[in-house]
Amino acid sequence: MQLEDIKSPADIKGLGYSELEDIASQMRQAVLNRTSQIGGHVGPNLGSVEAIIALHYVFDAPTDRLVYDVSHQAFPHKMLTGRVDGFLDRDDFSKVGEYTCPPESPEYDIFWAGHTSPALSLCVGLAKARDLKKDRYNVVAFVGDGALSGGVAFEGLDAGGALNSNLICIINDNQMAIAEDHGGIYSNLRQLRETNGTAADNLFKSFGWDYMYVAEGNNVEKLIEAYRKVKDSSKPTVIHINTQKGEGYVPAEQYREAFHFRNPYEIATGELLKIPPKPNYTTVLKDFINRSAKKYPRFLVITSATPDDFALTPREREALGEHYMDVAIAEQTGVSVMAGAARDGAKVVYGVVATFLQRAYDQLVEDWAMDNSPALMVVCETGINGIVDQTHLGFWDIAMITSIPEIIYLAPANMEEYDAMLEWALAQDKFKVAVRQPVYSIQHADYEVDKDYSDLDKFKVIKEGKDVAIIAAGDFFVKGREVADLLAEAGINATLINPRFISGVDKELLDSLKDNHRLVVTIENGSIEGGFGQRVASALGTSGLKVLNLGLEKRFVDRYNVKELEEKYGLLPEQIADRIKSLL
Amino acid sequence: MQLEDIKSPADIKGLGYSELEDIASQMRQAVLNRTSQIGGHVGPNLGSVEAIIALHYVFDAPTDRLVYDVSHQAFPHKMLTGRVDGFLDRDDFSKVGEYTCPPESPEYDIFWAGHTSPALSLCVGLAKARDLKKDRYNVVAFVGDGALSGGVAFEGLDAGGALNSNLICIINDNQMAIAEDHGGIYSNLRQLRETNGTAADNLFKSFGWDYMYVAEGNNVEKLIEAYRKVKDSSKPTVIHINTQKGEGYVPAEQYREAFHFRNPYEIATGELLKIPPKPNYTTVLKDFINRSAKKYPRFLVITSATPDDFALTPREREALGEHYMDVAIAEQTGVSVMAGAARDGAKVVYGVVATFLQRAYDQLVEDWAMDNSPALMVVCETGINGIVDQTHLGFWDIAMITSIPEIIYLAPANMEEYDAMLEWALAQDKFKVAVRQPVYSIQHADYEVDKDYSDLDKFKVIKEGKDVAIIAAGDFFVKGREVADLLAEAGINATLINPRFISGVDKELLDSLKDNHRLVVTIENGSIEGGFGQRVASALGTSGLKVLNLGLEKRFVDRYNVKELEEKYGLLPEQIADRIKSLL
Repeated sequence: MQLEDIKSPADIKGLGYSELEDIASQMRQAVLNRTSQIGGHVGPNLGSVEAIIALHYVFDAPTDRLVYDVSHQAFPHKMLTGRVDGFLDRDDFSKVGEYTCPPESPEYDIFWAGHTSPALSLCVGLAKARDLKKDRYNVVAFVGDGALSGGVAFEGLDAGGALNSNLICIINDNQMAIAEDHGGIYSNLRQLRETNGTAADNLFKSFGWDYMYVAEGNNVEKLIEAYRKVKDSSKPTVIHINTQKGEGYVPAEQYREAFHFRNPYEIATGELLKIPPKPNYTTVLKDFINRSAKKYPRFLVITSATPDDFALTPREREALGEHYMDVAIAEQTGVSVMAGAARDGAKVVYGVVATFLQRAYDQLVEDWAMDNSPALMVVCETGINGIVDQTHLGFWDIAMITSIPEIIYLAPANMEEYDAMLEWALAQDKFKVAVRQPVYSIQHADYEVDKDYSDLDKFKVIKEGKDVAIIAAGDFFVKGREVADLLAEAGINATLINPRFISGVDKELLDSLKDNHRLVVTIENGSIEGGFGQRVASALGTSGLKVLNLGLEKRFVDRYNVKELEEKYGLLPEQIADRIKSLL
Repeated sequence: MQLEDIKSPADIKGLGYSELEDIASQMRQAVLNRTSQIGGHVGPNLGSVEAIIALHYVFDAPTDRLVYDVSHQAFPHKMLTGRVDGFLDRDDFSKVGEYTCPPESPEYDIFWAGHTSPALSLCVGLAKARDLKKDRYNVVAFVGDGALSGGVAFEGLDAGGALNSNLICIINDNQMAIAEDHGGIYSNLRQLRETNGTAADNLFKSFGWDYMYVAEGNNVEKLIEAYRKVKDSSKPTVIHINTQKGEGYVPAEQYREAFHFRNPYEIATGELLKIPPKPNYTTVLKDFINRSAKKYPRFLVITSATPDDFALTPREREALGEHYMDVAIAEQTGVSVMAGAARDGAKVVYGVVATFLQRAYDQLVEDWAMDNSPALMVVCETGINGIVDQTHLGFWDIAMITSIPEIIYLAPANMEEYDAMLEWALAQDKFKVAVRQPVYSIQHADYEVDKDYSDLDKFKVIKEGKDVAIIAAGDFFVKGREVADLLAEAGINATLINPRFISGVDKELLDSLKDNHRLVVTIENGSIEGGFGQRVASALGTSGLKVLNLGLEKRFVDRYNVKELEEKYGLLPEQIADRIKSLL
């Protein structure tokens, strides 16, 4: 049978094992075909092929509910549910996203679930809804690829273990998270693998689940047998399957971290087609880390499963030794370890992806902001060209972080300012500082960059003008400059301000603008609502000055074209300049 | 030895067991003395007395680091660290707060840690800092009273289990959370208690920890022996102690839920001194719940360890049967179960305390807002007179919730509007709706309350006037009315608006204000920054209208007097009226 002929799971139900294996091999080609051309998650999707074929073979979706977590391993599921075109033909790639996506397949993709770890709790909800309607279908969570280390996954094990009803959890154990795995549970998973599931200590049993082990997690026959045993069970049951991340593609088996998510590459060698430019903001950060490790005896850099935020290679991480700690996919713990270590004098940098920091909002408020824990948190992948998947947008971090007292959020506008802010934030021992790593474009300072940011909330006037003042924050400062240049061509001499601080406003400077300005324009690379600009609007509310807030809208967008979205939101420099002219 | 003579832990180091028991009994009297007069956590602090005496007897704080989680069980710790006055004399009660508090005792209270579950992760940070400075003191987390069910506690067990160093975790197992406990782990704890710690499945061992069980957790001698065995150990070690919540005070032993936190009561009987007025907003909610359970066959009400949000008694919870689910202290799971059950057609209400909802920010964004899961979330204990402890402020919920797309946040101004919003939110199946339960004062509607809120973001003009428009949200609507009355006395005919929706603005109405107003004033019972009013300021930024945003400041405040804080923030009606007059 040809992969392209599969329109729904029904099409594989009658097949024999060898035919299923043939489908598996075609699927692997399709994963490589797509990811090599446009990038994507390689290893996770290669590792889960048989497990997902068996899932659709044994269970009856959409009646049975299948929830993937994290859903960056769900390409095989997409191929079996009418979306195989998205993997075969370049013209169709854009029809299909990286993660499960209800608009793509309302029947088969129940949740977005783009972040790790919530599947079990979501499935407890599905099971509860099923029981309330006295129905009897299966509810299955397919949990893998490091998703088990996030707090809500344990909560889900806890809630699920108390459920006296059908709930099946497949633990896709590929022996690593995004990078290598960390934490006590991974020792337990290893013990279970090494004892063929019979180890005395069993995490899942201690949460109240029945347990079954499948050693050959890439063997479709063994998987089908195992799944059949638990189908329609009336108790919470874990099937722990041992799979290989990257299975069937040598480079991905060998370099499992590099092939977790890979930019376009040559299939034959695995080599990247394009090398990212150097230096960039990530290399600034990486150099800062390596420098700081030498400078501070009690230096500690923390990551939560994404050391690539720092471009830190495995070798560099090893060289950092006790100065490096990965807490696994567990941002709550990332923040609390940062706060705890800083409280007792360690010099701590925690690097975190903006969208994942959402998991640690409470720790930011309760464990960092109010405690005496000066430290540096670097927030990556923010703004309009951070990550373009709806589930991973870097739009909300400004509203999230700046609503919290005591956290200073700095937005550097260029490489030199970024470096200076990192240096200052780690050297000082008074403030809790977050720095927003720029993404939008590589820029260099053409003004003198300050070394000291302890005079809080001081905005920097880069160019004095009149009538209109443009306050352009962070990596959108470049837009402010472009707009000012366009206005200059039209004879308007705008004031240009780099605020640097986005968690507070420079009242004095804002007040002084009244003298010879009529309009203040804020531009930020984040959601307007709850963001930086609205604070400026509020601060100037009774001043008589007009204020225009520009930025991203409070709405979910998925796999958008950056330029098109900028245009839609009126963020192209010409659009901004025109709008200003009409308001003056 | 008299309790009042203890100035530091050194004072108990030389004592014999019977003297320590005498201290314990004096401590219990002190707990009752304080809580019976001003209210407070009774059961948790009675249960932990011996465990904490033994802790300070064996370990050497402040060199050894002791972290309490949740810290509402730390009164005995406060009594041993120079703060016993706060429990003996009414005049001194206010010197001491409910939770560990670094400003109260910078030496002995390392973190605020007012929310449950972060202690282990914080201690991993402390241990890491210690190891980096090559020091050797003990780091001890005292975890209890339901704190184990929160996701970050499991993350902490996971991170701690992988630590090759000294880290001691005392699990204070009093067999319940705030109400009865829920979840698979509590079965495991029970198995461990029933087998004297020898059960085959052991949660802690499966996370990689050494384990020891102490059956008599209220026996100071047994505890001291156990602690001595693990002191200075170089491996992560759990001591699981079996204590009784409310130990030594019959009413608290008998009614463990009612005495978890108790308003002032008579010591002899345990009876409350004052019964809260009825009906109030909580009874509106409770009546709505009981009504809905009859109306909707697939009704589900979810709580996360605080069923008192609904004033639901144990008997009523039992009567709700399968329509009631408590997920333990696990708000991430609370939100995800709500989303999951709503996704498959259940009619779901999730009731949650604002400050604890902070833990579920990511689930709000990723598992609720973007999924097709219409449900109702009721947010309790918000605003200036929600909870006055710094760690439990209800100031941040508006900024947090309204920064997220797709969640409609409604703020009712009175009993009737609250009831109507609850009814509508559960009946409809299109929107994800959060309702902010009023706290500020009991109010009744003197205008016709709408039944249907599907025309989103429509503000309601209660009184038409001119020059100044007052938009007063939620339970601060009453302030708007008072201000309008004061202005009327001064001959100013203000427009008065109840926005109802705080997650969006009524553009049309705002634009129409330009015709005959010069000033718009917003008043909200939450933090101004990122809040409702700043959206109004932004929407009116280029209109030429002046905007004044009033509300709470973005700063931590602790155990404040409500009236004094209102005055400080300029929120008394006379202050607001004067400010408006000066701006007109």
